[in-house]
Amino acid sequence: MASNPARPDATRRSERSRRAIYDAALALVAEVGYPKTTIEGIAARAGVGKQTIYRWWPSKADVLLEAFLDLGEQAARQADPDPAAGYAIPDTGDLAADLKAVLRATVDELLDPKFEAPSRALAAEGLVNEQLGRVFVAKLLEPQLQLYVQRLRAAQDAGQVRRDVDPRIALELFVSPLAQRWLQHTGPISYEYTDTLVDYALGGIAPR
Amino acid sequence: MASNPARPDATRRSERSRRAIYDAALALVAEVGYPKTTIEGIAARAGVGKQTIYRWWPSKADVLLEAFLDLGEQAARQADPDPAAGYAIPDTGDLAADLKAVLRATVDELLDPKFEAPSRALAAEGLVNEQLGRVFVAKLLEPQLQLYVQRLRAAQDAGQVRRDVDPRIALELFVSPLAQRWLQHTGPISYEYTDTLVDYALGGIAPR
Repeated sequence: MASNPARPDATRRSERSRRAIYDAALALVAEVGYPKTTIEGIAARAGVGKQTIYRWWPSKADVLLEAFLDLGEQAARQADPDPAAGYAIPDTGDLAADLKAVLRATVDELLDPKFEAPSRALAAEGLVNEQLGRVFVAKLLEPQLQLYVQRLRAAQDAGQVRRDVDPRIALELFVSPLAQRWLQHTGPISYEYTDTLVDYALGGIAPR
Repeated sequence: MASNPARPDATRRSERSRRAIYDAALALVAEVGYPKTTIEGIAARAGVGKQTIYRWWPSKADVLLEAFLDLGEQAARQADPDPAAGYAIPDTGDLAADLKAVLRATVDELLDPKFEAPSRALAAEGLVNEQLGRVFVAKLLEPQLQLYVQRLRAAQDAGQVRRDVDPRIALELFVSPLAQRWLQHTGPISYEYTDTLVDYALGGIAPR
């Protein structure tokens, strides 16, 4: 990438530090778990002073929250390099195809070690540390689920989902099974599996 | 309950010890988490020597596994005091009603503090300790899920579920959303919620 002559050196140094701190925080939580991850440990691994971290974030939970938000944004940019499109689920008019595409991308992400190890460590802590769990659900997970709510509402407008269906519950029919298999190792995850979930959720399992 | 004169005192003492050990193991894992739960700690709390525990179980994972199996059996006996019925999901011929009834009982169990705290601690450990997670899924969770597989197969025979549906995947449409809401605090759980999941899973969310 060409350097931007208008950007002062201090800003570039800050961005390098910020990236190093995110990487260190994600690596540490994956290696030693949330309780043993400390601001001191993150600072040492990132090669910055701990005052640098405290200047930007009040706690390790805040560092990790932003590190995960950044990881998610990187993944979104990889999947769709056009920033003007935003992070909405595509609406091609074919609901099943759109849901299958986004769930296939989620399968890829869940199987990526860079994403998997820190996510699993954080999810484990969220189960027993209710306050942390609620913050991460509110700031990380629920905004992603709301993208499905929007896509399902558009499908209701297009007559492809029944009007009496609650989109916030309906999305769980395909999102939660994938989450549980991944989190609890209750079964393998694959494109075929998530495609099947979408078909069952849309069409039901009873005879039509 | 009347005492059984044919049962020797030693057996009754053993059963009291076994129960005390189960209770101590579940209480400890809920209070301090799996990593800090030790055979010594369980023995001290149960008021038995640690050799008593080692005589019956090779590791703390085995004690906890049996303590959870026992807790599940107690809950099953409370829900259905007739042991001849076994632990199958009832088959009244009305699939939706049968699934709703068993999921309502699961909601009750998940909201019972006696069950919730140790289950959550164990699930959290299973997320990061893959070996423990796989043992508990294989011995505790999967046998429960197989009861749904059996019920869905009977429904296929009765023409209430399509022949081309995989029952092991289909059950996740209502089981996994409940599990995720409970585990990750992603939403409230209630009878109305699980009833809705069953209706969506059977009928689908697309217009019929």
